[in-house]
Amino acid sequence: MTDPDVLRSMLQRYARAADARDVDRLAELFEPTAEVIGARGTQTVGEWLDTMRGPRAFPTSMHLIGDPLIELDEAAGVATMDTYAVVYQLSEPDSGNADLTLGIRYLDEVVRGGDGTWRIRRRTSRTLWMR
Amino acid sequence: MTDPDVLRSMLQRYARAADARDVDRLAELFEPTAEVIGARGTQTVGEWLDTMRGPRAFPTSMHLIGDPLIELDEAAGVATMDTYAVVYQLSEPDSGNADLTLGIRYLDEVVRGGDGTWRIRRRTSRTLWMR
Amino acid sequence: MTDPDVLRSMLQRYARAADARDVDRLAELFEPTAEVIGARGTQTVGEWLDTMRGPRAFPTSMHLIGDPLIELDEAAGVATMDTYAVVYQLSEPDSGNADLTLGIRYLDEVVRGGDGTWRIRRRTSRTLWMR
Repeated sequence: MTDPDVLRSMLQRYARAADARDVDRLAELFEPTAEVIGARGTQTVGEWLDTMRGPRAFPTSMHLIGDPLIELDEAAGVATMDTYAVVYQLSEPDSGNADLTLGIRYLDEVVRGGDGTWRIRRRTSRTLWMR
Repeated sequence: MTDPDVLRSMLQRYARAADARDVDRLAELFEPTAEVIGARGTQTVGEWLDTMRGPRAFPTSMHLIGDPLIELDEAAGVATMDTYAVVYQLSEPDSGNADLTLGIRYLDEVVRGGDGTWRIRRRTSRTLWMR
Repeated sequence: MTDPDVLRSMLQRYARAADARDVDRLAELFEPTAEVIGARGTQTVGEWLDTMRGPRAFPTSMHLIGDPLIELDEAAGVATMDTYAVVYQLSEPDSGNADLTLGIRYLDEVVRGGDGTWRIRRRTSRTLWMR
């Protein structure tokens, strides 16, 4: 696997873990000191993970993630990824509740740690649209 | 092309062939002894291809396929792919018939044959949601 | 970055530039003599860029682009990409105007120039469906 392949796989691991609400697997993708910047302002990754442990507004989600636009400095072990995603937040069929679909842009700063593993150091998540 | 690039291209070939209902091109992507596991239970690839030869419920489809999460054992010539797709099943405009959109997760076991070509040995297709 | 990685990044650069209506960044992706074939017939890239400078029918767009099916001749420095995209054209919320979603297939001929940069020589854009 090349570095770009590994970076792409991080986003897919993110999608699977977010959709399964598997907070431990989400945590593995971030540096312990990472920042997550989004609708709730700037959070530490720990604070953000706590919100992911909370109740789900929708029982099912699917993060369909486009190919990232990668800027990679292999020698320095740093990269940025600019990634579009469409997130389907789905209600129970026949519940009468509406679904929500979001267009999101993730801007990630990732670093290769001393153990050779790439992790997100800073994620900015922008909701481009919502329906 | 690296092996991950070839594996990704298999999914795109699948999408083009499925949308064109080109059964011969679909068949090329599978081992002759492959299994396809989905809504109809476990089928041989031959049985599954027969259903693809049948009448279409919708005249147009588009398989928009996310990046696969690839686990690759290059030495052994085996890989798995875990892939999200949104499948648009579209009625004739003005027909009064509804469209159908499906969120699908494909879990593929793929093998590199003696001729160097990767093929699907076992596909599990799970419909995550349908609208 | 391998050539397939660079080719993929071109599509993402296209999406970001198209959604930002950044005509200069769009222009960088094409050969100066490129052709763009679509709903308006065959245009020079200059003519096509002029239409992109015009008023937008929708204030926001998002080009969610699938993985390209790449055919690459590295020695010759030419490639083709066959790419699915779902384009969200979004009205102002509460404007009462409808959104438009399009399923598009881009067929690109790309060439590596004397400076080593890949650029689109000919793009065919087919709208597969519209809702």
